[in-house]
Amino acid sequence: MAEIKTVGLIGGGVIGAGWAARLALNGIAVRVFDPDPDAQRKIDEVLENARRATAKLTLAPLHDPAPIHVVATLEEAVAEADFVQESLPEREDLKRELLAAASRAARRDVVIASSTSGLLPSRLQADMVAPERLVVGHPFNPVYLLPLVEVCGGEKTSPETIEQAMTFYRSIGMHPLHVRQEIDGFIADRLLEAVWREALWLVNDGVATTAEIDDAIRYGAGLRWSFMGTFLTYRLAGGEAGMRHFLAQFGPALRLPWTKLEAPELTDELIERVATQSDAQAAGTSIRDLERLRDDCLVAVLQGLRSHDYAAGATLNAHEEKLYETSHRQVMGADDDVSQPLALHRGRVAPEWIDYNGHMTESRYLQVFGDSSDALFRYVGIDADYHAASMSYYTVETHIMNLREVGAGEPFQTTTQILAVDDKKLHIFHRLTATREDILLATGEQMLLHVDTKAGRAVPAAAPVLARLHHIAAAHAPLPKPDGAGRFVGAPRR
Amino acid sequence: MAEIKTVGLIGGGVIGAGWAARLALNGIAVRVFDPDPDAQRKIDEVLENARRATAKLTLAPLHDPAPIHVVATLEEAVAEADFVQESLPEREDLKRELLAAASRAARRDVVIASSTSGLLPSRLQADMVAPERLVVGHPFNPVYLLPLVEVCGGEKTSPETIEQAMTFYRSIGMHPLHVRQEIDGFIADRLLEAVWREALWLVNDGVATTAEIDDAIRYGAGLRWSFMGTFLTYRLAGGEAGMRHFLAQFGPALRLPWTKLEAPELTDELIERVATQSDAQAAGTSIRDLERLRDDCLVAVLQGLRSHDYAAGATLNAHEEKLYETSHRQVMGADDDVSQPLALHRGRVAPEWIDYNGHMTESRYLQVFGDSSDALFRYVGIDADYHAASMSYYTVETHIMNLREVGAGEPFQTTTQILAVDDKKLHIFHRLTATREDILLATGEQMLLHVDTKAGRAVPAAAPVLARLHHIAAAHAPLPKPDGAGRFVGAPRR
Repeated sequence: MAEIKTVGLIGGGVIGAGWAARLALNGIAVRVFDPDPDAQRKIDEVLENARRATAKLTLAPLHDPAPIHVVATLEEAVAEADFVQESLPEREDLKRELLAAASRAARRDVVIASSTSGLLPSRLQADMVAPERLVVGHPFNPVYLLPLVEVCGGEKTSPETIEQAMTFYRSIGMHPLHVRQEIDGFIADRLLEAVWREALWLVNDGVATTAEIDDAIRYGAGLRWSFMGTFLTYRLAGGEAGMRHFLAQFGPALRLPWTKLEAPELTDELIERVATQSDAQAAGTSIRDLERLRDDCLVAVLQGLRSHDYAAGATLNAHEEKLYETSHRQVMGADDDVSQPLALHRGRVAPEWIDYNGHMTESRYLQVFGDSSDALFRYVGIDADYHAASMSYYTVETHIMNLREVGAGEPFQTTTQILAVDDKKLHIFHRLTATREDILLATGEQMLLHVDTKAGRAVPAAAPVLARLHHIAAAHAPLPKPDGAGRFVGAPRR
Repeated sequence: MAEIKTVGLIGGGVIGAGWAARLALNGIAVRVFDPDPDAQRKIDEVLENARRATAKLTLAPLHDPAPIHVVATLEEAVAEADFVQESLPEREDLKRELLAAASRAARRDVVIASSTSGLLPSRLQADMVAPERLVVGHPFNPVYLLPLVEVCGGEKTSPETIEQAMTFYRSIGMHPLHVRQEIDGFIADRLLEAVWREALWLVNDGVATTAEIDDAIRYGAGLRWSFMGTFLTYRLAGGEAGMRHFLAQFGPALRLPWTKLEAPELTDELIERVATQSDAQAAGTSIRDLERLRDDCLVAVLQGLRSHDYAAGATLNAHEEKLYETSHRQVMGADDDVSQPLALHRGRVAPEWIDYNGHMTESRYLQVFGDSSDALFRYVGIDADYHAASMSYYTVETHIMNLREVGAGEPFQTTTQILAVDDKKLHIFHRLTATREDILLATGEQMLLHVDTKAGRAVPAAAPVLARLHHIAAAHAPLPKPDGAGRFVGAPRR
C-alpha cells in the first residue's frame, strides 16, 4: 500500500470531525466534504479539543498538524485522496448514493471506508464501482481519543482491503478489531444498543432517570469495562473455579426477568464454547494474577478520575478526606516525643512511579519528600482552613541525593528533621528509607517560605504553627548535622 | 443509628469476602458464616488483594485493619452484629430461609441487607421477623474497590432502613444509589444482563469469540463508561444540538436489528422525558465543557492504563513509541547548531500536576527536568537498544531553585546546558520557562552517573554517545556559568 498522505472525508459531523482531528494530529492532510455552512467552525472546535487532549496524552514529539480543508464537492474531497472515510448519518440510501459517487471519483487503488455503526457493508457496496475497496471502519466518539475501530468487510470486499484498512488505522494509533462475520450492528453496537434499549425502557417505564441509570454504570461495572470486557470480568466473578463455575452459578439467572432481552439457552455446547474461549483468552494467567491486574487497573483508573474529582474519583476524594480527618496522628500532641527526626509519612512505591530503568523515577523522590513536608504541615496544625485563609509554605530550593534504587511495591517511610526555622523561613531535611531492608534511599534538603498566596509575598506563619515548629526545632537542635546537608551538586563526597 | 463496629456476614464467597475486606480495612470487625471449609483461606487471599490495592489507592492514614472471624453458625455471625450483609448464591429459597433465620438471631434494631443482584426485596423479606429491616445492598466485584452499591427496599421496608443503609455504605467509601422502584435486576444488572445476554448470543451464533467481544468494549465504549454513562455520552454524540438531536438522528436505528432486544417505541413523550432528564443531568454545563471533561477523564484513564501497559494503555504505549522513533528532532545531526543551551523538551502543565496551592506541584518540576534529560539522552543517541544493553544514566544529585509558580494548561519549554562531562559523569543544568510570557520558572542542576544497570556499577558511556556529549560540552564551554549552579540550599541569594 502506498503511504497515506491525504484522506478524503465524506461528512464532517461529530464523527467526521473526530476523524479529521485524529488524522491531522498524525500528520495526515484532510479534505472534508460537508454541505453544512458551519462545518469549518465545528471542525475547528473539535480539532482544538483534540489538540488539547492529545497534548495531555503524550509528551512524545507530535507530528506537525496537517491541514484540514473543507471543500465544496464530494469529488474535491476524494479525487486526490489516498484513503476515503465516510461518516454520514445512518441512512442506508444516503450512504449508498455517496459511496457510489466516491467510488467513481476516487483512484481505483484507494480503500473506501464507512464509519457506519451497524449497516451491512454488503449492502453499502452494492452500487459502487470496484466494490472490493469498501470496508466498514467503525470508530467511537471521541474518535481522536478512543482507540477502537471495528473493521468489517462485505461479500465483495477483498482481503487486501481489510488488511490495508487495519494497517492504516494502526498507524494512527488505533486498535482495529476485525469483525469476521458480517452482522447488523457488528459486535460493539450490538452490546451498546442492548444497553441503550434497556436504558430507554427504564426511563419509559418510570423506573429510573437518565442520571440514575448513568450512575448505575459509572460507579460500578463501567470502571471494569474500561480495561476488561464482560467475559474476563465474569471469569473473575467465578472465583478460583473460573468461567465454568460462574456459568453454573449465574446460569439460572439467565431465565429470570432481569432484562427484556431473552438469553440463548445455556446448552452444554454453549457452556463448553464460552469456557474454552475464555480459557484461551486468559492464556494461562491464573485467577489470582488476573485479579491483581484488574485491581491495579482499577486503582489506576480511580487515581486518574480523582485528579478531575469526577464520578468514582470524587467518591474516592471524599472518603480520603474523611480518613485524613479521623487520623489520630495528624496534629502534634503536648506529650509527643519530638526529640528524633519525625516519622510522619509512609507509603509504597506505586507501579506508575517506575521508569524505563525499572526503578522509581527521580521526580517521585521529590513527591515523597513533598508529601512528607505536607505531613509535617498537618502535624504542626496547618489544615484546609489555614490554606483557605491564603497562607501556605512554598518550596523555594531543594537538594536531593539519590543513594539507592527502589522497585515497585516496596514500602517506604520518611523522617523529617528541622534544621532551622524563623517567622518566614523553614529549613528541613528529609530521609527516605526502604522499610523492609532499612536502607537509606535518598535525602532531600529543602528551604520553604511562608507566603500569603493571594498577595504572592512572604509573610510570617501563624503563631500556633510557629510555636510548634520552634518546639520541634529546639528538640532537634542537638541532633548531628545530616550527611548531605549544605552540599552543592558535584561537591566531593565525604 | 448506633455506630457500626461489627458486621455479620452471611456467605463468604467472592462477594462476601469482598465485603469482609472492605469492612476490615475501614476498621470494622467482621464475623462471617460460611460452611465452606476453605472459607478462611479464600477470605484471607481476598483480604491480601484488598490490602495491596487499597495501599495503592490512597496514602491517607488507614484504619488499623479490624479482625475477620469465620464462625460456625449463622447465629454466631449475626447475634452481636450492628449490621448484617447476606451474600449467598442467587437462589431465592436459600436467601429467604437464611434471611429469616438472621432476622430471628439479630438485634431488632439492626439493618439486614442482601447483596442480591436482582431478586425482589419484597419476596426476600416475606419470612422475616421485623421485615422492615430488610434492604437490598447490591455491590459490584471487587467490592473493596468499586464504589457502587444499589439500595432498594421492598414493600415492607421502612424509610429509616434505607437511610441507615445508605449512610453506612457512604461511611465505608461507597456510592449508594437508591433504586426507587422495586424491579427485577434493579438498574445496573438490567443493563449488565442485557450486555451479557447479547454477548452470549454472539458466541452462541459463532459471530465472535469471548476475547473479541471483550475487546469491542474495552478499547471503545468501556473507556467512556468508566466515568460517564450511556445518556451523558450520547448527549455529547449529538453534538451542539444535544440529546434531542441524537434521538432524532439515531431514533430510526432503534428499529434496526442491531440487537436481539426490542426497543420501546420512541414516542414524543419518551423523547421529551429523556431530553428533559438529560438537561437536568447536565445541570447547565455546555456541550463544549462536557466534551472537555470527558476528554480529560479519558486521558486520565488512558494514562492510568498505560502504566500497566494493558488494554487501551498498551495501544497508547505502542503508538507513542512510534512517535518517538519517527521524531526528526531525536538524534543530533552533524550540522546542528549546539552553541546555545539545547531546547529539546516542551509541553503543557497537566491538570493533575496541580496541588492544593493551585500551582504545579514541586515534584513535577523534577519530572520536567527528568524528561529534559531523557530528551538529551535521545539526542545524543541513547535509545531503547542502548537501555536493553543494560546501559543508562542515573541521576545521583539534584539542586532545584523554584522561582515562579505556574498554573494548569500553561505551555512550557526547557533548555539544557552541559557544564561538564567525562567517561562516567555528566553535569548538566536545566532551565524551565513558561512559553507564553517567557518567564524563568525554575532551574535544575544535576549530576548523572553512567551505569551498567545489571551490574549496578558505574561504567564509561559508549563512544558515540560520549563523542556527541563532548562536542556539545565544548560548544557550551564559552557560555556563562548559570545563576544557581553550584548553590547549596540556604546559600545567600546573589
